[in-house]
Amino acid sequence: MEVSARNSLKGTIKKIHPGAVNSEVTLEIVPGVEVTAIITKESVEHLQLQEGKQAIAVIKASDVIIATE
Amino acid sequence: MEVSARNSLKGTIKKIHPGAVNSEVTLEIVPGVEVTAIITKESVEHLQLQEGKQAIAVIKASDVIIATE
Amino acid sequence: MEVSARNSLKGTIKKIHPGAVNSEVTLEIVPGVEVTAIITKESVEHLQLQEGKQAIAVIKASDVIIATE
Amino acid sequence: MEVSARNSLKGTIKKIHPGAVNSEVTLEIVPGVEVTAIITKESVEHLQLQEGKQAIAVIKASDVIIATE
Amino acid sequence: MEVSARNSLKGTIKKIHPGAVNSEVTLEIVPGVEVTAIITKESVEHLQLQEGKQAIAVIKASDVIIATE
Amino acid sequence: MEVSARNSLKGTIKKIHPGAVNSEVTLEIVPGVEVTAIITKESVEHLQLQEGKQAIAVIKASDVIIATE
Repeated sequence: MEVSARNSLKGTIKKIHPGAVNSEVTLEIVPGVEVTAIITKESVEHLQLQEGKQAIAVIKASDVIIATE
Repeated sequence: MEVSARNSLKGTIKKIHPGAVNSEVTLEIVPGVEVTAIITKESVEHLQLQEGKQAIAVIKASDVIIATE
Repeated sequence: MEVSARNSLKGTIKKIHPGAVNSEVTLEIVPGVEVTAIITKESVEHLQLQEGKQAIAVIKASDVIIATE
Repeated sequence: MEVSARNSLKGTIKKIHPGAVNSEVTLEIVPGVEVTAIITKESVEHLQLQEGKQAIAVIKASDVIIATE
Repeated sequence: MEVSARNSLKGTIKKIHPGAVNSEVTLEIVPGVEVTAIITKESVEHLQLQEGKQAIAVIKASDVIIATE
Repeated sequence: MEVSARNSLKGTIKKIHPGAVNSEVTLEIVPGVEVTAIITKESVEHLQLQEGKQAIAVIKASDVIIATE
């Protein structure tokens, strides 16, 4: 399956923090570059996500804010 | 200013593609890892974004989808 | 590829309306039920979207608002 | 009230799964076509949502990702 | 129609800036407090939005980022 | 830090409602005008948010829906 979201960042699952409805999943893209997602508990089970497994962070370009210091 | 968004990825602006209301801005986080944002033309001007400048991609954890192959 | 987004609605592309940076794509899920997406022009070309082709509308549960009349 | 969101899908509430802050609400649009939303517990109470009641899934076109197989 | 989005800010339309697919609409909530939306051109026409008219900015709580200085 | 999000509404934190993964934070922008955000529990701690403190609600223009009565 290919998606229209412009950002697909491949990485390794470093941490899964479960909650009542949602869970936090942190991917390491490359050493020092991490992306954290909040997805439903059901999705974690459905995708059989586990620490150490490969996964992709998919992000729509319209959901990215640009900041400058 | 600090933000509640869980993802702040620092990088260098590689490309700016302008449109009537929105513009596409691509950041290189590290070689081979890019993030594309769609922000308003007015924001590009307000933040004085230019290719080669440093910027940060700010993304809410709830806007990240996880995919597996 | 499987995605964590809870909503994946399969349908047929009925209309593509192009813009400078973004394009509007309308899918017919079943007769009388349509979903409209705004994606980048580049994604329309990359996914080779055409009217009459099959596609899937992927929507995060946290992006759905519930209304009552 | 009319909304600018391009997608308003009418359906029947099939399931409500409560959490600490958020709850999952699944609508059946037509047999075989469901949409799941995550909204706050407070909104479920405020809108007096119950299984079997009519409701509308409101989705911005910019929040829809298009995928192809 | 009532919506599950936690934020409904009533105001007066101050400015409409049209684009090819999207348009920018700015509401004045109270003097000195403005909210800008990007909605599709078709929605501006469908809702018959005009400067000086009353409208409501509807925002999901999960789409709000908190920042501190 | 400056952000590309078009909406930055300054206010005072009126209420923080914690959950397992997410927390609800309500800001008073001006008397009678409130904005509610859902952010992760970790962000509440990281930003040291407390009732009575100043904070900013940051909202992308593409995340705002316009409604008319």
